[in-house]
Amino acid sequence: MRAADRAHVFHSWSAQGHIDPLPIAGAAGSWFWDHAGNRWLDFSSQLVNVNIGHQHPKLVAGIAEQAARLATVSPAFANDARAEAARLIAEVAPGDLNRVFFTNGGAEANEHAVRMARVHTGRHKVLAAYRSYHGATAGAIALTGEPRRWGSEPGTPGVVRYWGPYPYRSAFHAGSEEEESARALEHLRQTMVMEGPHTIAAVVLETVVGTNGILVPPPGYLEGVRALCDEFGVLLIADEVMAGFGRCGEWFAVDHWGVVPDLITFAKGINSGYVPLGGVVISDAVADTFRDRPYPGGLTYSGHPLACASAVVSMGVFREENILEHVRTLGEKVIGPELRALAERHPSVGDVRGLGVFWALELVRDRETREPLVPFNASGTDAAPMAEFTAACKASGLWPFVHFNRTHVVPPCTITEEEVRYGIALLDRALDVADRHTTAA
Amino acid sequence: MRAADRAHVFHSWSAQGHIDPLPIAGAAGSWFWDHAGNRWLDFSSQLVNVNIGHQHPKLVAGIAEQAARLATVSPAFANDARAEAARLIAEVAPGDLNRVFFTNGGAEANEHAVRMARVHTGRHKVLAAYRSYHGATAGAIALTGEPRRWGSEPGTPGVVRYWGPYPYRSAFHAGSEEEESARALEHLRQTMVMEGPHTIAAVVLETVVGTNGILVPPPGYLEGVRALCDEFGVLLIADEVMAGFGRCGEWFAVDHWGVVPDLITFAKGINSGYVPLGGVVISDAVADTFRDRPYPGGLTYSGHPLACASAVVSMGVFREENILEHVRTLGEKVIGPELRALAERHPSVGDVRGLGVFWALELVRDRETREPLVPFNASGTDAAPMAEFTAACKASGLWPFVHFNRTHVVPPCTITEEEVRYGIALLDRALDVADRHTTAA
Repeated sequence: MRAADRAHVFHSWSAQGHIDPLPIAGAAGSWFWDHAGNRWLDFSSQLVNVNIGHQHPKLVAGIAEQAARLATVSPAFANDARAEAARLIAEVAPGDLNRVFFTNGGAEANEHAVRMARVHTGRHKVLAAYRSYHGATAGAIALTGEPRRWGSEPGTPGVVRYWGPYPYRSAFHAGSEEEESARALEHLRQTMVMEGPHTIAAVVLETVVGTNGILVPPPGYLEGVRALCDEFGVLLIADEVMAGFGRCGEWFAVDHWGVVPDLITFAKGINSGYVPLGGVVISDAVADTFRDRPYPGGLTYSGHPLACASAVVSMGVFREENILEHVRTLGEKVIGPELRALAERHPSVGDVRGLGVFWALELVRDRETREPLVPFNASGTDAAPMAEFTAACKASGLWPFVHFNRTHVVPPCTITEEEVRYGIALLDRALDVADRHTTAA
Repeated sequence: MRAADRAHVFHSWSAQGHIDPLPIAGAAGSWFWDHAGNRWLDFSSQLVNVNIGHQHPKLVAGIAEQAARLATVSPAFANDARAEAARLIAEVAPGDLNRVFFTNGGAEANEHAVRMARVHTGRHKVLAAYRSYHGATAGAIALTGEPRRWGSEPGTPGVVRYWGPYPYRSAFHAGSEEEESARALEHLRQTMVMEGPHTIAAVVLETVVGTNGILVPPPGYLEGVRALCDEFGVLLIADEVMAGFGRCGEWFAVDHWGVVPDLITFAKGINSGYVPLGGVVISDAVADTFRDRPYPGGLTYSGHPLACASAVVSMGVFREENILEHVRTLGEKVIGPELRALAERHPSVGDVRGLGVFWALELVRDRETREPLVPFNASGTDAAPMAEFTAACKASGLWPFVHFNRTHVVPPCTITEEEVRYGIALLDRALDVADRHTTAA
C-alpha cells in the first residue's frame, strides 16, 4: 500500500519526492493508529476537522443508513436530508441567516460567498487579511493572506489586503488588547476610505484566525468591523470553516461576541469531514437578491444527501452529548490553565492564546525580543527546531498541529479531560526540545 | 419537507423565488420517484453523474463498509482506499498518466490542473473553448465558455477563448467533418501564434463537449490539438468530468481517439457521485516538476477515504458487469439508430450526434435554415417551446436533460436495452410537441 501511495497518489502542498506519508490503519475517538499498532493522540483533529472525533458510531451508522436510502440526487431536486440539514443549520445560525447553500468544502464555500457579495452589492473589491487561509481554488487562494497564495500568483484580481489584530505581534504598535482593537479598526477604516467604500463588496475574515495562529479577536474588534461594514454598506463574510461547529464552544464562533455577519462559510466541523461538505449560511437580505434573479453559481454535489444526512446526525450528537458545553469547560478549566502553566515552565513558550478547543502556543527563541523559534515560512535547516519539536511529539504518541513557529492544541471537541491532560503532559516533555533552541538555553 | 426546502435551501443557478424543487424520495437503477409514487426514467443520470445507476447495491455496501472502517484521514497520510483508487485510475489512464491528485469534484479538479500546468510551464495563459463548462469556482468559471460565466465577470485573468469544432453550426464555414477539423485546427494554431505560444501554459477542452451540446470531435481534431500542443510546448488538459468513466464507452473518452493528454480531470462517473469526488490524473513529466518543489495547492478532503473506497468499488462494478462494452453496444446498436429514426419522423430534430450513452438531439424550427427551436440562452416565453417539450417528457414519466435547444440522451451506463427503447418511445411522443413549433407545422 505504501508503494501504491508513493507511485500513484499526488499529495497536497508537498514536494512529492520528499514525503513519506504515514499509512493510517484506523481511528477511534481522539486516537488513530498505523498498521504496526502505533497509536497517536490526535491533538490536530486531522486538519482540524474531526470535531466529534474519529469514527463516531452514530455518524458511521447514519452514513450507512443514508447510503442505503438515497446516496445522491441532483441539486435541482428537494430532498429530506438536504432540507433537514439546512433547517438545523439555519436554526442555530445567528440573526436572519436563514438559508444555506451547500458546497463540497470550505474553499468552494468562500468562492460562493464572495460571488454572492459581489452580485448583491454590485461592487467588486473584497478586503481580506494577512495571516489568513481561505482555500486553494482561484478565488479562495486570492483571499488567502499567507505563503500558500504565492504559488498561484498573479491570481484573481479584486482582493485588497489589510492587517488584522494580533496583540502579541502588533502591526499597530499597540500596548494593550484594547489599543490593538481600536488601532486595527482605524487601519481597516482608513483602508476602506482609501479604496473607496462604494467599490468594496465585502470584508472577509476568519472569526478566529485558524492555521495562521489562532488569533482571537480582541474585545470590540468584531463588533467594530460589523459597524464599519454597516456604515459603508459592505458585507461581512465570516469564514468559520475551522472556527465553527464547536471548535470555539459555540455553533458559530461569532456567537462568542454576539456579532451577526451577512454570510458565514463552514465545512470541517459540520460533519467532522466524514463526507466532504461545506456551505454558506445566507442572510435574508442577500437571499432576497436572488429571489427573482438567478444566482450565478452551482455545483453537481450541492446539498449532497449523504453529506447532508451526516451533518444532521452530527448536529444531533452535539446536542445529545452536550459538546458545546464540554468544549467551553475544557477551554476555560483545563486547556487554558494547563497551557499557561506550560508557559511558566518553558522559556520557548512566548504566547498562549485561544478558546474552546482552539489554542496556540507560539514558540520563541527569546521571550523578551519575541524572536520566533524559526523564521516566518521557514523550511529545511531553518525550520529544524520546530521539526525536532514535532518529531519529539510524534515519538511520544502525540500528533501535534504545527505551523511555522507555533503548535496548536486543536483536539476533537469530544476529547476527555483525562486525554487532554495526558496530551499536554506529552507536550510538556516535547517543549524541552524547543527550550534547547532558546537564548535561555 | 418541501416547506423546509423552500425556507432554508439555497439552490444552484436559480432564482430562489421561482423554483419548486421536486422532492425525491428514492431511486434504483435507471429510475427515481417522488413521495407520491410518481416514477421517472432517468435519461439525465441526475447531472450526468450516476453512471452505474442509482443505489447500486455494491456501492451502497462499499460506502457502509468504509465508513465503519475509516471515514476520513488527513491528506498528508497514506491510506489503503486512497492508494488503491489512485492505482486503479492510473492503471486505466492512457500513456504515462500515473499519478492522481484527488479533489471533491470537477471544478476543483480543473482549478488544480490549470495550476499544475502554469507552474510546470512557467507560463500563464490558458486557451479554453466557447461552448464549454468547467465548473463554478473562480478559476473554473473563467475557463467556462458559456453564459454561466457572465455572472462572475470580470473574473480570473489569463484565459484566451477559441472556437472548437461544431460541424452542425460551423464557425469556419466548413462543408464536411474533415474540413471542420482542419479549419478548427488552423484557427487554434493561428490563435496560439497570435497569443505567443511561449505565453501559453495549456489548452483546456472537454474531450467530448458535454452540457453545451455533446460536440463529438470530428476525425483528426484531438490528434491535431495534441500535435499543436507538442509543437509549442503547451500542455493539453482534457476535462473528462462528464465524458469519462464509461459515458463514451471507455474509461477515458480520449481512448476513443488514442490521444494522450498531459492532464485529465475527472469527477461524476468515477463513483457516480455517491460521495463527492473528483481529481486530476497527472503525466510523469508534470509530476516530476513537483518532485523537489512543493505543489502549491491542496484541500482538506483530498483523497478522502470514503470517497476513494466508493471509487474502488465502482471501478470493480464496471469490470464485473462489462459496462464499457454494454455502453458501446447501446450507443452503436440502439441509441444511435433509434435517435436517427426519430430524426426521420420529426421535423424538429435538426441533428443527432453522440457516442456511448452520451447523445444530443438538437431541435430546430426549420431544418433547412437550422434556426434553433429557441434562441441561444433563451428564458421565459422565448424558451416556451423547449419548456413544453420538457413538460411533455416529465408528464410521460421520462426525466430528460434539456439545455437551450437540445435534449441530451444521457442515461446511466447500466441502463438496459429495454429501458432505452422505452425512454426513446416517450421522447418520440414528446417530440410531437416540439414539432408544433417548427415551420413545417
